[in-house]
Amino acid sequence: MQFSPLLEDLICKLQFLPGVGRKTAQRMAFSLLGQERSRGLDLAASMSAAMTGIQRCSCCRNYSDEPVCPICASAKRQDEKTLCVVENPSDVAIIEKTGLFQGVYFVLHGRISPLEGIGAEDIGLDQLERMLAAGSFKEVIVALNSSVEGNMTSFMIAKIAGNYGLNVTTPSRGIPVGSELDTMDEGTLSYSFTNRKNL
Amino acid sequence: MQFSPLLEDLICKLQFLPGVGRKTAQRMAFSLLGQERSRGLDLAASMSAAMTGIQRCSCCRNYSDEPVCPICASAKRQDEKTLCVVENPSDVAIIEKTGLFQGVYFVLHGRISPLEGIGAEDIGLDQLERMLAAGSFKEVIVALNSSVEGNMTSFMIAKIAGNYGLNVTTPSRGIPVGSELDTMDEGTLSYSFTNRKNL
Repeated sequence: MQFSPLLEDLICKLQFLPGVGRKTAQRMAFSLLGQERSRGLDLAASMSAAMTGIQRCSCCRNYSDEPVCPICASAKRQDEKTLCVVENPSDVAIIEKTGLFQGVYFVLHGRISPLEGIGAEDIGLDQLERMLAAGSFKEVIVALNSSVEGNMTSFMIAKIAGNYGLNVTTPSRGIPVGSELDTMDEGTLSYSFTNRKNL
Repeated sequence: MQFSPLLEDLICKLQFLPGVGRKTAQRMAFSLLGQERSRGLDLAASMSAAMTGIQRCSCCRNYSDEPVCPICASAKRQDEKTLCVVENPSDVAIIEKTGLFQGVYFVLHGRISPLEGIGAEDIGLDQLERMLAAGSFKEVIVALNSSVEGNMTSFMIAKIAGNYGLNVTTPSRGIPVGSELDTMDEGTLSYSFTNRKNL
């Protein structure tokens, strides 16, 4: 089926969204056309505004509407002298949701991957080193995902932080709180037994 | 988690898309921000253009970039003197894909539903009657979905078309071509046995 040029263009571009193939894009396009047109226009306007207005915070590299994000701009959060390094902006979102961490973040936007040609500077490790060298931090929490690349990146960050005599930690891994033992995969179970704690 | 105002606004508006809740909207927003920004801007521009540029064809009410859609504007298709009535523009798309139907369409954009306050004029039955009264058609194919409301609407259209002595047909229902008998639901199987044909 050939759609009209405007419709075909919309269906094509909607596939830029993650997890959206041609069929879903068609359904989305017809749904937008079937609703009040002002809603589609609102969505388009918000998208434009976000694409042009959202930048990376010059301190932590997280997405921000301002040159410095509210977390980095907060004296209270800087006073904690704790830096949490994460892979993605969505990690900041989920950690903030716990309300437990009161320090500041550093967002890598990826992890080192020689196969994909992603090196230390692509994920801002030079900027991270300058921040640590400035000497305002006591502890660095490395909260990356435990893939091969994630672990490699964690070790590099630990090494950099070690150079400045900082305390380097990482969130504990093991059986999720509330999970049943018999639903665990072998990897997690082996790890949690090997790394058992005194009760 | 409080996102920045621009990001929060985008996440909120992405939920206008069908099947997109807050979590998916977050994932989409972060994905758009992580890609080349020009892609998100392209999508926003296509969406704006579609919302303002796509209208209903004045003949068949299908979505069209022009006041009259290419199907209605085609003398070849008008010459078939066959009209196919469907509920949604997506139905036109799927029928066109078969390439079998060479007549023109009429799109209701819904079906009669007293409970939802959708009456005959809301789905353009007055416009349909004027088209049939003009006397250029020989056959009307009523290809609505077989819900209670769909069936009721089908009967109303059949009655209108009957007033003008037109041949009214509907696509056959039964076991889909290529389906196994033992995978069929009882409703379809009962229907297809009751409506069996000579071999």
